[in-house]
Amino acid sequence: MFDFKISKKDPKSLARTGIFKTPHGDIHTPVFMPVGTKASVKTLSQKDLKDLDAEIILANTYHLYLRPGEKVVKKMGGLHKWISWNKPMLTDSGGYQVFSLAQEKGYTENTVIKAEVKIDKNGVEFKSHLDGKKHYLTPEKAIQIEHDLGADIIMAFDECAPADSSKKYFSEAMDRTHRWLTRCKKEHEKLSKKQKKSQALFGIVQGGIFKDLRINSAKFVNSQDLPGNAIGGLSVGEGKKIMYDMIETVIPHLSEKKPRYLMGVGTPEDLLECVDRGIDMFDCVHPTRMARHGAFWTDKGRFSIRNEKFKLDKNPLLKGCKCETCQNYSKSYLRHLIFENEILGLNLMTIHNVHFLLELMRQIRTNITKGTFKKFKHNFLKRFKHDD
Amino acid sequence: MFDFKISKKDPKSLARTGIFKTPHGDIHTPVFMPVGTKASVKTLSQKDLKDLDAEIILANTYHLYLRPGEKVVKKMGGLHKWISWNKPMLTDSGGYQVFSLAQEKGYTENTVIKAEVKIDKNGVEFKSHLDGKKHYLTPEKAIQIEHDLGADIIMAFDECAPADSSKKYFSEAMDRTHRWLTRCKKEHEKLSKKQKKSQALFGIVQGGIFKDLRINSAKFVNSQDLPGNAIGGLSVGEGKKIMYDMIETVIPHLSEKKPRYLMGVGTPEDLLECVDRGIDMFDCVHPTRMARHGAFWTDKGRFSIRNEKFKLDKNPLLKGCKCETCQNYSKSYLRHLIFENEILGLNLMTIHNVHFLLELMRQIRTNITKGTFKKFKHNFLKRFKHDD
Repeated sequence: MFDFKISKKDPKSLARTGIFKTPHGDIHTPVFMPVGTKASVKTLSQKDLKDLDAEIILANTYHLYLRPGEKVVKKMGGLHKWISWNKPMLTDSGGYQVFSLAQEKGYTENTVIKAEVKIDKNGVEFKSHLDGKKHYLTPEKAIQIEHDLGADIIMAFDECAPADSSKKYFSEAMDRTHRWLTRCKKEHEKLSKKQKKSQALFGIVQGGIFKDLRINSAKFVNSQDLPGNAIGGLSVGEGKKIMYDMIETVIPHLSEKKPRYLMGVGTPEDLLECVDRGIDMFDCVHPTRMARHGAFWTDKGRFSIRNEKFKLDKNPLLKGCKCETCQNYSKSYLRHLIFENEILGLNLMTIHNVHFLLELMRQIRTNITKGTFKKFKHNFLKRFKHDD
Repeated sequence: MFDFKISKKDPKSLARTGIFKTPHGDIHTPVFMPVGTKASVKTLSQKDLKDLDAEIILANTYHLYLRPGEKVVKKMGGLHKWISWNKPMLTDSGGYQVFSLAQEKGYTENTVIKAEVKIDKNGVEFKSHLDGKKHYLTPEKAIQIEHDLGADIIMAFDECAPADSSKKYFSEAMDRTHRWLTRCKKEHEKLSKKQKKSQALFGIVQGGIFKDLRINSAKFVNSQDLPGNAIGGLSVGEGKKIMYDMIETVIPHLSEKKPRYLMGVGTPEDLLECVDRGIDMFDCVHPTRMARHGAFWTDKGRFSIRNEKFKLDKNPLLKGCKCETCQNYSKSYLRHLIFENEILGLNLMTIHNVHFLLELMRQIRTNITKGTFKKFKHNFLKRFKHDD
C-alpha cells in the first residue's frame, strides 16, 4: 500500500525526487505539507487546497483528541470523509503539543514542566490548554487515536524535550522516545491487523543538539524498518547552523530508501538547505501564520503588506505568480483588506504564501530532475533576503 | 445605458420580474444584493460570489470614504477594477451610516445626535466612528465620492431619521432629503457630463412610519424621473406589519417602469412579502452576519450550528442544497469549525446563507414567470418558521 520510489538523485547533493504512494494518492517529494491544526488549514477551504495542488495536508492529533474527540471523527467516517479531503493526510502524535503547550504557558524549566506534564513509565499526564482538565496519553493511546482519525501517515508518540534541557535530560527523553516507538509500532501492528486499516507509521529521531544522541536515535529509529523516518525537535530555537548540522549528522543513518521528514520546518531557505541535505518532507505553520499577520514572500524575501508604499500599488504581490491572489488582486486592495481585518485578506494572503512554497517545491523537483538543483538553489538564495 | 424592462407581471400581486441593464451586465429582478461594506462581502472571495451567481454587490460609501479614501479607489481604476469584480455594483451615499453610527454609539436622542451630527443648510458634520475625527459631507460631496468609487448604481444622500423621532422631525428630515436629492441630481448630471461616466442615480423615499409623509416623499422622489427609486428608513425597528404597510402606501406612487429598491431588508419572509408588494431590489447584511454567528437557514427556518444535536450529523445544512458548503461538508464538520473559530467555518456558513437567499430569489423569479408566485410564497411560508 505504501511505497517510496526515488525518481532522480542530484549528483551534487543529497537531494532527490521521489513518489510516495498512499491509499489516497501519490505524494511527489520533496514535498511541503500545509498544516491544518484543527482539521482546517487556516483560512483555506479544501477547494482552495485542491486549486493550490497541495498533495498532502496535516492535522494535529492533540487538538482533535481534545475537540471534537477522535471518536466523533471516527463516527463521521474518519478525517478524509469528515473534512471532505480525498488526498493524503498526516497526523502527528500529539507528543509535541503535550510538551510544547506546557512550555508556551511559561513553564520552561524541567522541574516546572514535570509539575504540569507528569511523565511516568507508562505515559504522560498533562493538562488541556483549553480548560486545564487532566488527560493521560500513552504511546498505545496515541496510536489508537491516530487510527480513529485515519490519516494515511501517522507519527509515533515522542517526547520533544525543551531546547534548554541538559544533555542528561535529552538522553533520557530520547531513550523514552525509543521505548515509546517500540510500543507504538506494536500497537499499530495490532490495530492494523484487526481493523484492516492502511496507515503508515513513521518514527521520530530525537536527541536535541547533541550529535552522539542524534546518531544513536537515528540508528534506533532506522532499525525499526518503518515506511518513513522523521526528524523532530529541530527548528525550536537552536539556530539554522545547528539545525543544518544536526540534519547532516542524522541523514547518513536513515535509510536512503525511505522518505525522510523534517518536522516543523518551512521557510524557503530552510526548504532549499534541507532538501540539499536529503530531506523529502516538510510541514510548518509559518506560511499560513505569517499570512494572517499580513506578511508575504516574493523571490526577494519577506515583506509586509501593511507597508505604506503598497497603498497605491496596482501590482500583484509577486509579478508572474500564478496563484489566485496574484492573478486577481493588487497589493493596494490586499493592503486595504488586511488593514480592515477583512477575512478575505487573510484568505488571499494565505493562498499566496502556500502557493509560493508549493511552487518552490515544484521548482525544486524540476531542477533535481534536470540536474540543476544546486544552481537553482544558489540563484534563489542570492536574490532572497534572509528570512528568520 | 440603464434600462429596466419588465418581463412578467404576477396577476395576483404586485410582483414582477424584470431585467435592469447596467454597464457591467444585466440584473435579473427581483434581486437580492449581498453587502460588501468595506469593498468585500465578509468572508467571501469575488470567486465565491461569482460561483454563487451574485449579479450585483454593494459597497458602503461611508466606510470607503474614511478608509482607504475614495481617491485611492479612483486611482486604482475604480471599485470594479480595484476589487476585481466585473459585474454590477451599487454604493449607498453614506447618509445612513453618518446618522446610524452615531446612534450605535448610544446617542439615540435627537438632541444628542445633533451634538454629534451637526446638520446645517449645506450638509452634515459628523465624527468618524474610527477615530472621532470631524468630517463634513454635503449632497454634492457624497455624489463626488460615489463618482470616484464608480459603482453602476449610486444612491442619493439622504437623512435616515431615528425610529423614535417625532413626526415633526421626520417631516423636517424628509424635506431635507428632498432638497438634498435635487442637489444630488444636479451634481450627478454635472459630473456625468464632465466625466462621461455611466452611473445611475437612485432617489430615496423617507418619511418614517407616517403615511402622509411617505406619500409626499414618494411623489417627490418619483417626480425626479431617475432610473430607479428606493425606499429607505424601514426595517429599523418599526415591526414587520408597519413595514409592509408603509411599502403598500408608497408603491402606488412610484413609477411601475422603474426598479424599486427596498434598502436594508433581507430575511426570507421579508423578501417574499415585499416582492409581493412590488419591490424589485433588496440588500441586507443579515445573511452574512448571521452566518458569522453560526446561524443558517433551511426551508424550515433559522437554526444554530452550535446546537449539540448536530455534533454527529453527517447531513449537509440543507438536503438538496446546491451550494458549495452543502455539496461538500456535513453539519458535524461545520459545527466543529464554528466552535474552533476556524475562518473556513465562517466562509462556508456565509456561502450557504447567501446561496439560500439568491436561490430563493431565483425561485421567486421562476414562479412569477410561471404565474405561481402566490402559491410558492404560501407554501414557503407555511414551512418556514418565523424569523425575526
